[in-house]
Amino acid sequence: MKLFSISLILVLILSGSLCFSQSGEPVKEDFKPSVLNQPGKEYPMVNSQGYARFRIEAPEAQSVVVSLGLGGTKGGTPLAKNEDGVWMGTTSGPMDEGFHYYHVTIDGGVFNDPGALNYYGSVRWESGIEIPAHDQDFYALKDVPHGNVQQVLFPSKSTGTSRRAFVYTPPGYGQDKAKRYPVLYLQHGWGEDETAWSNQGHANLIMDNLIAEGKIEPFIIVMTYGMTNEIKFGGLRNFDITPFQTVLVDELIPYIDANFQTLADQPNRAMAGLSMGGMETRMVTLNRPDVFSHYALLSGGVYAPEDLMDHSNLKLVFISCGSKERPDGVKNAVVALKDAGYNAVSYVSEGTAHEFQTWRRSLYQLAPLLFKE
Amino acid sequence: MKLFSISLILVLILSGSLCFSQSGEPVKEDFKPSVLNQPGKEYPMVNSQGYARFRIEAPEAQSVVVSLGLGGTKGGTPLAKNEDGVWMGTTSGPMDEGFHYYHVTIDGGVFNDPGALNYYGSVRWESGIEIPAHDQDFYALKDVPHGNVQQVLFPSKSTGTSRRAFVYTPPGYGQDKAKRYPVLYLQHGWGEDETAWSNQGHANLIMDNLIAEGKIEPFIIVMTYGMTNEIKFGGLRNFDITPFQTVLVDELIPYIDANFQTLADQPNRAMAGLSMGGMETRMVTLNRPDVFSHYALLSGGVYAPEDLMDHSNLKLVFISCGSKERPDGVKNAVVALKDAGYNAVSYVSEGTAHEFQTWRRSLYQLAPLLFKE
Repeated sequence: MKLFSISLILVLILSGSLCFSQSGEPVKEDFKPSVLNQPGKEYPMVNSQGYARFRIEAPEAQSVVVSLGLGGTKGGTPLAKNEDGVWMGTTSGPMDEGFHYYHVTIDGGVFNDPGALNYYGSVRWESGIEIPAHDQDFYALKDVPHGNVQQVLFPSKSTGTSRRAFVYTPPGYGQDKAKRYPVLYLQHGWGEDETAWSNQGHANLIMDNLIAEGKIEPFIIVMTYGMTNEIKFGGLRNFDITPFQTVLVDELIPYIDANFQTLADQPNRAMAGLSMGGMETRMVTLNRPDVFSHYALLSGGVYAPEDLMDHSNLKLVFISCGSKERPDGVKNAVVALKDAGYNAVSYVSEGTAHEFQTWRRSLYQLAPLLFKE
Repeated sequence: MKLFSISLILVLILSGSLCFSQSGEPVKEDFKPSVLNQPGKEYPMVNSQGYARFRIEAPEAQSVVVSLGLGGTKGGTPLAKNEDGVWMGTTSGPMDEGFHYYHVTIDGGVFNDPGALNYYGSVRWESGIEIPAHDQDFYALKDVPHGNVQQVLFPSKSTGTSRRAFVYTPPGYGQDKAKRYPVLYLQHGWGEDETAWSNQGHANLIMDNLIAEGKIEPFIIVMTYGMTNEIKFGGLRNFDITPFQTVLVDELIPYIDANFQTLADQPNRAMAGLSMGGMETRMVTLNRPDVFSHYALLSGGVYAPEDLMDHSNLKLVFISCGSKERPDGVKNAVVALKDAGYNAVSYVSEGTAHEFQTWRRSLYQLAPLLFKE
């Protein structure tokens, strides 16, 4: 009986239906297509433990390696060619819940996985994969009333261009012509652009669901390009916020207030940003406390109490990050702000790093705190 | 002197700065980055004659071939590896003006060009390249008032899903709460989806420019997925329009009329489609003359006079195609319709085939003819 079991396991291992991870834990063979695949594509797949499996057709290639995560910090997953000439491979361990960028290096060249949808990150359109999260319900597409995400092209004299922004308007927007809404200006991170918060962030679905559950009063979200991608890491010391601040405060905000049903005053205007967008949020809000009343930094630095001394009309400071980042820095900063009398809130996303699951959760935590007065 | 010239030409040829095309005409070395490249990417490039030049990094690859056009009908452009390990190549001849889909076959696998933006066509996200057209001004991004393109998620009981549509609203939409607009329902072709008309078609910019020049009265455009991509070529005989017609007429149109400032009646509703979207337009308009008053088929079949006998409230039939398709079929059909007393207009796009430049021009010709009464 024991012999039979061992034989069966050997057969299963040889047939590829049972594998063991680096940690020795068996990899469950319940792989399903990632929800971010292109229509009709089976691969990449993910399993219930968070492993990802890839399949790339390139029969004459010499090497195919999948790189997951910003800067390849999670290491590469080399694929092996099977007898059909197809390259396949599974990550050596489970991945964090949520969204990850990745690409495929084929014979030394960097390409996207033809099976996956593309998302703008690392200053290029990258492949995206989604590890189902235990709390994915809050950004799921449900049968509830949906707001719209609209592309606007606004004139920018300072840059001499028509610039793009995306505007989330809540369900029912425009039905009551007299109704006006507060506005959150929400920034992406370095390497990303104005598509990030709707595409990989699901900001619109997070809002739709919060509104449907009655957890927030509807507001508008405006997302535009933060002009961050010309800045190299290490060049941040010399970063000049002026060009972006001019576009945002002097050009975009007046355009939004002229073309949407906004509450066009400081108490009804918030700014938030992730990573480098947090750094921009910090600089812009410190420069222009007359424009924004609610400030939020998502994995993007902190405020010290002395930074905010002149901010008498400040309503809320929200600071967050993932538990795999520097949560103590976030918590300590908020304790100091509270001690100094500010309305400050910290949030730490459990089990996530400097990635979009941290920021989806941060938006979900932030939204109910905005525009309460 | 003559010797010197020949030497110079030889040097130029050997140094790669002067090449000759298949036809013997010299290829002009005025290549510039395609306007559809990803931010900051130099390649692919196009020159003033319509040649395209590609550059792919894949140092260990055995073969790299660029495939241009639907089904590779334009043939492949094999790239050659230079001394830096970079693959480069130029098309063997000039390409038609306008937008083309393409992909790159690397060691037998199909990938996108990391330099180019992606567009949904051939049932996948493909690379896109733009050959500057002599008439590109009509879809250029100009410093004029811009309308918005908004994503709506509408409930569909018949399919049990939230479905996506994009809605173009003209500049100033919503300012005058009492103003209402006619609506054009505009369909993509096989292999494409609801993103096609805004992304590769520039439908929004065509409208913005026509409105800025006072050539049309503003109207709304609605674009949704035509459910065409499950249909294989050759299976068209058995094509059932019912599921899509239900989504369009019974679900999307009521949603649009409930949520936008529309003129919600038959005289103010048009339907148009390209290629397989034209076939769908033909079927839906023939089934439901009570819903639409203006019909347009762009490279998507024709109407015969007897098809329209019961269509007493028909205002306009517009039929178009490229000169490299079957222009005589389009012209003859319109002559027959006119002879039978219908308000019919034909349009043939000079020098273009079954591609988006034909359809951009068709929309530009069609828009001023819509909703005139």
